[in-house]
Amino acid sequence: MITFDTRPDQYKHWQLTFDGPIATLSMDVREDAGLSPDYKLKLNSYDLGVDIELADAIQRIRFEHPEVRTVIVTSLKERIFCAGANIMMLRGSSHGAKVNFCKFTNETRLAIEDASANSGLKFLAALNGICAGGGYELALACDEIVLVDDGNSAVSLPEAPLLGVLPGTGGLTRVVDKRRVRRDLADFFSTLVEGVKGKRAVEWKLVDAVYPTSQFKEAVRKRADALTAASDRQAAGPGITLNPLSPTVADGGYTYSAVTMTFNRGKRTAELTVHAPTGPQPSTPQEISSAGDQFWPLRAFRELDDALLRLRVNEPEIGTVLIRTEGDRDAVLAIDRTLVEHQSHWLVREIVLFMKRTLKRMDLTARTFFAVIEPGSAFAGSLFELALAADRSYMLHDDKEENVIALSPMNGGPLTMSNGLTRLQTRFLRDAAKVGDILAHQGPFNAAEAEEAGLVTFAPDEIDWDDEIRVAVEARAAFSPDAMTGLEANLRFAGPETLETKIFGRLTAWQNWIFQRPNAVGEKGALKAYGEQGRPEFDWRRT
Amino acid sequence: MITFDTRPDQYKHWQLTFDGPIATLSMDVREDAGLSPDYKLKLNSYDLGVDIELADAIQRIRFEHPEVRTVIVTSLKERIFCAGANIMMLRGSSHGAKVNFCKFTNETRLAIEDASANSGLKFLAALNGICAGGGYELALACDEIVLVDDGNSAVSLPEAPLLGVLPGTGGLTRVVDKRRVRRDLADFFSTLVEGVKGKRAVEWKLVDAVYPTSQFKEAVRKRADALTAASDRQAAGPGITLNPLSPTVADGGYTYSAVTMTFNRGKRTAELTVHAPTGPQPSTPQEISSAGDQFWPLRAFRELDDALLRLRVNEPEIGTVLIRTEGDRDAVLAIDRTLVEHQSHWLVREIVLFMKRTLKRMDLTARTFFAVIEPGSAFAGSLFELALAADRSYMLHDDKEENVIALSPMNGGPLTMSNGLTRLQTRFLRDAAKVGDILAHQGPFNAAEAEEAGLVTFAPDEIDWDDEIRVAVEARAAFSPDAMTGLEANLRFAGPETLETKIFGRLTAWQNWIFQRPNAVGEKGALKAYGEQGRPEFDWRRT
Repeated sequence: MITFDTRPDQYKHWQLTFDGPIATLSMDVREDAGLSPDYKLKLNSYDLGVDIELADAIQRIRFEHPEVRTVIVTSLKERIFCAGANIMMLRGSSHGAKVNFCKFTNETRLAIEDASANSGLKFLAALNGICAGGGYELALACDEIVLVDDGNSAVSLPEAPLLGVLPGTGGLTRVVDKRRVRRDLADFFSTLVEGVKGKRAVEWKLVDAVYPTSQFKEAVRKRADALTAASDRQAAGPGITLNPLSPTVADGGYTYSAVTMTFNRGKRTAELTVHAPTGPQPSTPQEISSAGDQFWPLRAFRELDDALLRLRVNEPEIGTVLIRTEGDRDAVLAIDRTLVEHQSHWLVREIVLFMKRTLKRMDLTARTFFAVIEPGSAFAGSLFELALAADRSYMLHDDKEENVIALSPMNGGPLTMSNGLTRLQTRFLRDAAKVGDILAHQGPFNAAEAEEAGLVTFAPDEIDWDDEIRVAVEARAAFSPDAMTGLEANLRFAGPETLETKIFGRLTAWQNWIFQRPNAVGEKGALKAYGEQGRPEFDWRRT
Repeated sequence: MITFDTRPDQYKHWQLTFDGPIATLSMDVREDAGLSPDYKLKLNSYDLGVDIELADAIQRIRFEHPEVRTVIVTSLKERIFCAGANIMMLRGSSHGAKVNFCKFTNETRLAIEDASANSGLKFLAALNGICAGGGYELALACDEIVLVDDGNSAVSLPEAPLLGVLPGTGGLTRVVDKRRVRRDLADFFSTLVEGVKGKRAVEWKLVDAVYPTSQFKEAVRKRADALTAASDRQAAGPGITLNPLSPTVADGGYTYSAVTMTFNRGKRTAELTVHAPTGPQPSTPQEISSAGDQFWPLRAFRELDDALLRLRVNEPEIGTVLIRTEGDRDAVLAIDRTLVEHQSHWLVREIVLFMKRTLKRMDLTARTFFAVIEPGSAFAGSLFELALAADRSYMLHDDKEENVIALSPMNGGPLTMSNGLTRLQTRFLRDAAKVGDILAHQGPFNAAEAEEAGLVTFAPDEIDWDDEIRVAVEARAAFSPDAMTGLEANLRFAGPETLETKIFGRLTAWQNWIFQRPNAVGEKGALKAYGEQGRPEFDWRRT
């Protein structure tokens, strides 16, 4: 079973050091410490385990080290920055494992860009040696890229020419869309196994600067200082510690403090319940800082994030997830008010940004989500985003009209999707008046009101309730899982496309296609042939 | 061999009639007249042959019938509008054939929307009976959809629940993005085999109106009249006839009047040459109308379009196309000036829009294009778009500096890509100043100037020329064709995404993925199981 909870003193592949406002994240992959003994992580190549540590490090810099303004991403290996995703690992992985590996690494790189855009944390890729494939894609996620000019070190995306697959972590998109490398040069570059180095790499915008070996360290330091000076990170005061989540994990599910996930393997379903807090909650930045990682939204969303990740990689056959909430709706709404009121405080901002990323993780999880809204639930404000993120929602229309949902300002802006819109804006596309009316509604919505407002999909009464949900879940669970994945990947992201949705919607979809083509993964495909005797044999038909 | 040249008196599956400003395009598919005898086109289901006629009909309405302002799309079969793409055809098709079928049908539907947006030609889908899958996707491409309310007729997208694949012609995208159906309702709708009918179909925005059988015809007529009254189509005067292209087709290639395509099957390459006109060209709308389909840009781009389509479906192993032009560069520039000067004239507008669609067809053709620019070539203005559309361009740096390219106002606006940008804007993304400087340049660019301006990829001198091109072509032809398809599909479309790029980039990529998954096309997959005894057997793992 793959787990996602780690911490710096347990890292096998990265070293995280601090020097005032500059953190240095150095890759030093242990060849023999891959997630599987079937491959060696040579030349700073990586597998999911390496990336889990990277994701953890970035998260901790945000929460635990408010003093940091610039992160230097580099390597401790001589003349090697990173050789990219490990090819033997890819070769030995199932289709689903490859796809989920790429999804997580993409989310990690987008988290770097989110930290830069929204937390003022700047990233400098200091490429001290060869930088290939996923290594260069990691650099592309940084704000600046500098490359050593030693006559040998180059950046490259050799996936297509060498392995018959695509750069799987946003490389193609970022080269032309983020760095604005000309498309014809990008075409040439992406088919050149040896990559591009020196002055040409700068001219083509593949890197921002190159420096001779003798000047490299000092130049990196100077650029880091400049990034630090330009950063607007407003994070005063001590950080908070992200303690281990330590869920109880059994065959039947995972139990956290505020989240439970239980599996019904026979039906290929799961029930995911988020428990709202009770009683008074911290309401000032000081109280929130004191509560630290035990402050409910951070705690609950960290647990939710962990549960979703475990589900993805460890439970491939669970196709449908029923989402429930329970507890004190008003406590959630009170917390939302606190979050909005103090969102300029660095820690509150980080918490809200983390909630946003977790909800995006849900949007991008290839499982069906149905929200089930019953009396006693707490689908209010930020927790109601779970219902909005779900593919459908069912709300019991009870005679007493005690079953209600509620919105908060957290539904009106801070928790945007990958497409740059809020879930309400995506739901009522190009209908700002409707979104405005809903947000202006005073008090909760009962089932009839929620249905009328379009906030829930169906509101059956007590007579139909059990049957309707049972039939819907059984029908869903019987459909082709691939068709559902494709359907959801399209319907969930109406509206504008962004670099982020392009990476997941366009690039990833093409990569997934290629990841199962015989030309890549067949017995004579490029991914199988790499490193072995002989050359790949291709079916030459273009599609 | 599949051909694309047809005309109304040869249609097997459609009837095209005219009544003043209203054309009626009626589907009446001949069961036994599919492209292959292996399936029967029951219930107005369609194959590529049916769609080729549809594309032809829309094209002819634009050029041959300037008086038309509204097109009613309906069926001549009782209580059946269209059952969608023929399932037995899909089941029996190769992966590449399925993908190219969907690509062409998507282009046809986007041509309907282009006619509406840019030519003022309005489309009314009059659904006189069941309307399933691709049938509903055709309706979605229209401006309005009305459905008969007979207690039975419904619209549906049953692909996912019934066949384990996606609606392949933009359905999912148009439902949520164009018609703004709420995503949860779209999710429910797209998994409901029987579809949605009557008042609910209107409430969910799936159709614009329903009418009882007794009132249907009259209501359709009234809505068509209203669309006609609101249309701003400014197309006075007689239309022009689109005569057959009649290329000479041999195993070695296709020869048209202004376009030749020759194959080198051993190398899996083709050479595509466009011949510029010579001598004086029509320069007024009247002269252009007189020249009709023999006016060079219309003739040349119709031939180019036909050559690209034949290449796609008939020559799957030709992976790389070298594009050349030859002839009188100044004649092309003169034509461009005429086109821009008179672009408000309906026929000139139609010609320019057709050139735009043909260039988009090239952008969307899954083959590598390299432009080869040598002395005597005519890469000027609209023909230079071929070099901009190519994945790379090679321009001979001759000592005499006689090898030149030139731009015209046609490079500055009318020929936008699917992403809504011109090819220059896409090439120099978010750098309007650069695009402005290039367009302001007076006179032609020699090779050094073109390279400096970033208008060509490489400009080798005579010593390197032959080798550099030979090596580039040989290297390209040796790569995995799937990886090249995925690479090009990503690098060609930098910048914003639109409904159009979403359909090709996101939806199509997911569909292609599903189109080769065992859950769809395996021996026990849904597409294989449909219509036979027994149910599909799925691998339940989600990816």
